[in-house]
Amino acid sequence: MESPEVIVFDVNETLSDMSAMTTRFTDVGAPAHLAALWFAVVLREGFARTVVDDAQPFATIGAEVLREMLEPIDLDRDPEAAVDHILTGFLGLTVHPDVGEGVRSLRSAGLRLVTLSNGAARVAESLLGSAGLRDRFEHLLSVEDAGAWKPDRRAYEYAAGVCGTDLARMLMVAVHPWDLDGAHRAGMSTAWLNRGGGRYPGYAAAPSVEVAALPELAQVLARS
Amino acid sequence: MESPEVIVFDVNETLSDMSAMTTRFTDVGAPAHLAALWFAVVLREGFARTVVDDAQPFATIGAEVLREMLEPIDLDRDPEAAVDHILTGFLGLTVHPDVGEGVRSLRSAGLRLVTLSNGAARVAESLLGSAGLRDRFEHLLSVEDAGAWKPDRRAYEYAAGVCGTDLARMLMVAVHPWDLDGAHRAGMSTAWLNRGGGRYPGYAAAPSVEVAALPELAQVLARS
Repeated sequence: MESPEVIVFDVNETLSDMSAMTTRFTDVGAPAHLAALWFAVVLREGFARTVVDDAQPFATIGAEVLREMLEPIDLDRDPEAAVDHILTGFLGLTVHPDVGEGVRSLRSAGLRLVTLSNGAARVAESLLGSAGLRDRFEHLLSVEDAGAWKPDRRAYEYAAGVCGTDLARMLMVAVHPWDLDGAHRAGMSTAWLNRGGGRYPGYAAAPSVEVAALPELAQVLARS
Repeated sequence: MESPEVIVFDVNETLSDMSAMTTRFTDVGAPAHLAALWFAVVLREGFARTVVDDAQPFATIGAEVLREMLEPIDLDRDPEAAVDHILTGFLGLTVHPDVGEGVRSLRSAGLRLVTLSNGAARVAESLLGSAGLRDRFEHLLSVEDAGAWKPDRRAYEYAAGVCGTDLARMLMVAVHPWDLDGAHRAGMSTAWLNRGGGRYPGYAAAPSVEVAALPELAQVLARS
């Protein structure tokens, strides 16, 4: 792996602990297991919009999928209030316990740090602001400005353009194999953050490196 | 809506009643709610593969997603046997109650009928064979021969090529808005089969016609 100049972080689930979203569903009277289904369906729909080259904001899709999903459920409040309560949950998420040390180590090593999310930039602002990590990041980027969601190569190319860097000098960090596969195809190095000891699918391009927590990545890069 | 010559049916959930897949999950000791999550994740992954132009067979993705999803679960059998038990559930599905009458009416009206699935053609073979409807269909098509999953326009263009028909003379029938949106963008008419009284998302192209059951479609087309 070529030594990277810019580390590009995915945001949802990679930096943020999305388990708190489950509580947002149970708060409004919906079953807890709908949280994972909702997130999968939002990505499914977002990817479908990218396939037909009509990308839509995460919040637009997130709200429409919620309206459909919550319709048969006996909620404790007005449906639009429930949608709003769940979506605003994104602004109250916290980072995973390994993120603070990992981000500080990578930045201390002189690496440039940015985020690139399929979600809105303000979600990353809120997340990293409340974690006291905002000033470590040069840019908080959203695919909303790229015209296509990850894993479309235009999303990664957009990030490279903003950073003024070749894709080959950039390393994508994510928990999602589909994101790493797209980054790899666009020309980036990739790091799979595999906190839960999960399986990497055989059909996706293997990551350049695999770590169980973010501080390990700083160690791996220091050695390379 | 121009009077169509060919009716193109989606298969999974549109013709088949996938609720029996839930039993396949509980059979192996997995929670029932994983069935819907699994199907959403398979489509998410399949669409991501189409975004990066490396489409994979439904069965390949279906199996890999199951391996990952079942890993933390205390199954009643070997993991590969559980994956196999769930996937072979597709070959035992039955059609929704409205399908037989709808298909017979449309065919009696002189329309040419085909299926176009993101899944394997043998699933449609099994489904329509056991329903005694196989001979009503001219072709059972899979995107595995198109190089891209629906909603990519190449999938619909592939079906038009096999049928020797202009896309404008074809009508796509599906329960999934993302499929109708893709067909519309490719140049087809579209019919939303909305059995459950669901909501159509605002970001997808509206269907040419909406029906609550398949026999209604034959009536609508007879009047047009």
